[in-house]
Amino acid sequence: MGYDERTPPTAEEYAAYRTRFCNWGRWGPDDELGTLNHITPGVRRAAADLVRDGRALSLSRPLDTRPGPSNPYPTHHFLAMPGSGGMLDYLGMFIHGFSQTHIDALCHLPTAEGLAWNGKPMAAGGIPGTHSGTIDFLAAGIVTRGVLYDIPRLRGSAFVEAGRPVHGWELADAAATQGVEARPGDAVIIRSGFDPYWEAQGTPPAFGTAAGVHASAVEFLHRSDAALLVWDQQDAPMADQGLPNPMGDIPVAMHVHAMVLPYLGMPIVDNAQLEPLAAACASLGRWEFQLVVAPLDLPGGTGSPVNPIAVL
Amino acid sequence: MGYDERTPPTAEEYAAYRTRFCNWGRWGPDDELGTLNHITPGVRRAAADLVRDGRALSLSRPLDTRPGPSNPYPTHHFLAMPGSGGMLDYLGMFIHGFSQTHIDALCHLPTAEGLAWNGKPMAAGGIPGTHSGTIDFLAAGIVTRGVLYDIPRLRGSAFVEAGRPVHGWELADAAATQGVEARPGDAVIIRSGFDPYWEAQGTPPAFGTAAGVHASAVEFLHRSDAALLVWDQQDAPMADQGLPNPMGDIPVAMHVHAMVLPYLGMPIVDNAQLEPLAAACASLGRWEFQLVVAPLDLPGGTGSPVNPIAVL
Amino acid sequence: MGYDERTPPTAEEYAAYRTRFCNWGRWGPDDELGTLNHITPGVRRAAADLVRDGRALSLSRPLDTRPGPSNPYPTHHFLAMPGSGGMLDYLGMFIHGFSQTHIDALCHLPTAEGLAWNGKPMAAGGIPGTHSGTIDFLAAGIVTRGVLYDIPRLRGSAFVEAGRPVHGWELADAAATQGVEARPGDAVIIRSGFDPYWEAQGTPPAFGTAAGVHASAVEFLHRSDAALLVWDQQDAPMADQGLPNPMGDIPVAMHVHAMVLPYLGMPIVDNAQLEPLAAACASLGRWEFQLVVAPLDLPGGTGSPVNPIAVL
Amino acid sequence: MGYDERTPPTAEEYAAYRTRFCNWGRWGPDDELGTLNHITPGVRRAAADLVRDGRALSLSRPLDTRPGPSNPYPTHHFLAMPGSGGMLDYLGMFIHGFSQTHIDALCHLPTAEGLAWNGKPMAAGGIPGTHSGTIDFLAAGIVTRGVLYDIPRLRGSAFVEAGRPVHGWELADAAATQGVEARPGDAVIIRSGFDPYWEAQGTPPAFGTAAGVHASAVEFLHRSDAALLVWDQQDAPMADQGLPNPMGDIPVAMHVHAMVLPYLGMPIVDNAQLEPLAAACASLGRWEFQLVVAPLDLPGGTGSPVNPIAVL
Repeated sequence: MGYDERTPPTAEEYAAYRTRFCNWGRWGPDDELGTLNHITPGVRRAAADLVRDGRALSLSRPLDTRPGPSNPYPTHHFLAMPGSGGMLDYLGMFIHGFSQTHIDALCHLPTAEGLAWNGKPMAAGGIPGTHSGTIDFLAAGIVTRGVLYDIPRLRGSAFVEAGRPVHGWELADAAATQGVEARPGDAVIIRSGFDPYWEAQGTPPAFGTAAGVHASAVEFLHRSDAALLVWDQQDAPMADQGLPNPMGDIPVAMHVHAMVLPYLGMPIVDNAQLEPLAAACASLGRWEFQLVVAPLDLPGGTGSPVNPIAVL
Repeated sequence: MGYDERTPPTAEEYAAYRTRFCNWGRWGPDDELGTLNHITPGVRRAAADLVRDGRALSLSRPLDTRPGPSNPYPTHHFLAMPGSGGMLDYLGMFIHGFSQTHIDALCHLPTAEGLAWNGKPMAAGGIPGTHSGTIDFLAAGIVTRGVLYDIPRLRGSAFVEAGRPVHGWELADAAATQGVEARPGDAVIIRSGFDPYWEAQGTPPAFGTAAGVHASAVEFLHRSDAALLVWDQQDAPMADQGLPNPMGDIPVAMHVHAMVLPYLGMPIVDNAQLEPLAAACASLGRWEFQLVVAPLDLPGGTGSPVNPIAVL
Repeated sequence: MGYDERTPPTAEEYAAYRTRFCNWGRWGPDDELGTLNHITPGVRRAAADLVRDGRALSLSRPLDTRPGPSNPYPTHHFLAMPGSGGMLDYLGMFIHGFSQTHIDALCHLPTAEGLAWNGKPMAAGGIPGTHSGTIDFLAAGIVTRGVLYDIPRLRGSAFVEAGRPVHGWELADAAATQGVEARPGDAVIIRSGFDPYWEAQGTPPAFGTAAGVHASAVEFLHRSDAALLVWDQQDAPMADQGLPNPMGDIPVAMHVHAMVLPYLGMPIVDNAQLEPLAAACASLGRWEFQLVVAPLDLPGGTGSPVNPIAVL
Repeated sequence: MGYDERTPPTAEEYAAYRTRFCNWGRWGPDDELGTLNHITPGVRRAAADLVRDGRALSLSRPLDTRPGPSNPYPTHHFLAMPGSGGMLDYLGMFIHGFSQTHIDALCHLPTAEGLAWNGKPMAAGGIPGTHSGTIDFLAAGIVTRGVLYDIPRLRGSAFVEAGRPVHGWELADAAATQGVEARPGDAVIIRSGFDPYWEAQGTPPAFGTAAGVHASAVEFLHRSDAALLVWDQQDAPMADQGLPNPMGDIPVAMHVHAMVLPYLGMPIVDNAQLEPLAAACASLGRWEFQLVVAPLDLPGGTGSPVNPIAVL
């Protein structure tokens, strides 16, 4: 049973991820880069070699200032009142959630024992107890090879449906179909087809993810020595995981987040816009490119809005 | 008299910039990219070829949440009160000013006649009258060759001093000294040495720039078909310009801004952190590299915070 | 036809309110108090005489930080990040809307011709063109007699239902039933029963008012020389008004607002919590008391959050 | 030695305040009103009897949106960008500090042992560990007798000078001079003359109080069974106290705050504007009136902006 047999982990197998895939200490006790350590100078050079067509694409959604069920924490974009002493545009935003494209710092989710990446303690209120795991440690940016795993294309469907979460072995299948091989340091970009999904629904999904990626994908990320996870839908919902809730009482499915952030030490770009990228890749017949993610240098922040750029 | 004679423009010559360097209509009446049109696929490919050492560097200052004379509009970084309905980090910031690293959209400064890039009208309150010139048009990111013009290195001084503004022909001198040639589509990155400047002062300068770049640099930018201006100090102060104030009653020297944004149609990255980059360039003996600037996709915004990444 | 015949105004009669009830110039061309001029020292003394039981009550809803259909613009309540330079609680709120208890300044709604109270011009963006009509003019507070008009009590129903808007003559009826007489300078407090309404629905109404006060009430306010309008539900919806929309394209029923603010020059307290007050009045058998409303002194603001206090 | 001998407390005497003036348990173990319990219905009735001239006055400073050394945390007043989904004015403010007129909730300062009013525990980040001591408990408003203690008038000076802090017995002196007697339930309003002070300086003082009230005033507040403290300058600076810093490492003099909030259980209105009130009292020859303070009902807040209204 397990990944090689293309079966989802049992509750026990999922629990064992916490030790099997734990990278604590792998790059020293005070490491702050986690799986970004897989991005060596050679990886960056090889990524630059993928710039063949000279085309740049955004993987970001527009910041959305309109409130609604799918965007209960909208971005604020204000003008300072004339004479009020401010300077034109004020941008205010909750960094996390299911709307704005953002990156989670390693500290964003602790383990059930209250420990963040590399075993560092958390303090009250969801912030680190020491200066560790915060987004400022990623300020040099993430420049590496991006590989798009286009699951709707693999499945011959318009989008990943509720009830059929993306499994780890499907990522391997997609790579094979697309003629690309996973390499250490990759940004693994999983397309579930968020836009076609909600166009089919007639409305964007309410706060949360109605369909997405199963916990079994964690094994793929670990085996392939990936550096970064990027996705348009997030963790598949509770019903699709068939596993205990690693978040305890918090009724949001975080089965991938809860392994990837604290144990693997891998940052995650949530709510990416992958439709233009998928179209470009299909048209060019290649699914690998240079990817640049540049988090804002927010000291002590648990994440940052980002506009990831693919250069093909 | 003029640039070729290494003399600053007279008031008449400076006024004539508005027609000599005006790019309105150059890329069509509804163009929204301005000088970013110089960044062709070939320019992007050539920029990627400059990734030789596989090293990535940030050109951003940390977002600064501490108020003070040099930072009267500090960034806000809040936690949502437990139970208050929000989600962890709230990031709030004025986009412009002299502290946070940010990019100015083309609409950020209009002409004295109230027209923005390509002659588009402005509305009240410093925002465009139509959807034009805003930062969302730059959401695909700026990926091009970056060239560092290290003026303190050229001058053999620690930093650009007040009273000795950076002139356009010095950029040409720096290029020659550094063995690099300006090319169309470049990001022209002008280092004045902000950090050594304020360390020498014992305190960061109050809101504004105490030393910086003269209006004569505009001619260099236009002649070389540059795409983007990046700098650590901004426009040299009024006394160093020796020219009428193009901003009328607004007592902030904007002699470069006032030409570059509305007439050339060139975005500007203000308040870059260039010290680590200068050290890396000096150590590698090369001053050209791939530069990626990824503005947030803020519809209607007049700019965005950015973390520009140099890949060497 | 008309108020005395207990019939709602026709479209023509409603349009005529703009001249019949217009107070422009009544207290001079530069008056900034509008109907608050009715609150003379004698009115304030008489109001203080109504403090008989020595009991103080809030007419405010709690500031609501939870987003949802009824509260798409929730209040923000943040803690400054430790070390971030801020000071504990940051309170951020949109002043207007249908959730938070707030007062509208006289400038909050202009006429169709773009004029605010006393004929002062508005500028772009919904703010006054000159310093006029803003909330800072009301900084001395509103201290006067409050009279509760308890419409559900009058009607013998739990709350005002959709399709049965509150009419002006019902205010007179309620006064008669309650044994109280309208006097110049009064705060007219109209209870529609917001809480029982939404408890009956099982959910608070979506953004807007599902039931409330008809335009005919404007005549009562004008005839009685009232100073201030306070209510828990706002203008009855479009279908209940049976009148053209005075807001043009804006699909929010503002038939009372649109007369009261710009023409009468009467401030309005929206979204009051009137249940505890109604219970106290019923228990004491009197519906008049001292009312104190203390807007924050926000220069240039179009309103303010308030916590109106009734002293019985 | 001590209050009766008109000598400031020694370090030991000041430390003993913590037991001598401790009201924990006085109104039950779960009391949330503290000294506001002194405001009985009779006190409210008597306060209303003081409304003789029918005049209302604000004790609030304007909200100040301009940054500067005296206002490093200015209020934000924004307009939502057209089309951005917001609604006109957004008001954002840090509640505490030395600029905006605000009320401190009982939880705002804990004891050195980390306990707030009535011995309730604090949590990390300066917020209560349980729902206790927060501003929502004061939502019914504070309606009582206000008495102005005009210290510059007593001293025959323009303002309280640095080096000459206001002592408790001077409050008794001022009462005697003004012909008024302290009564249980009073709001004690101490004028130090903030405006004349900074006009004499030519600039408002930097963040903090340069002159103000000595710890010895705490004894007056306790002896007289006052309900509320209101002042224009806050605690006199460290040098004027001549006492150990009750805040430990925090270099802000809080000798009065540190007793009044957690031990007495008395809320404080900071940064009041008392000049118009002082002029009115002097002109009317009476220093007592009705005072109404109406905090916003902010659940979990440690304070609120307020506009206190005096009715004379």
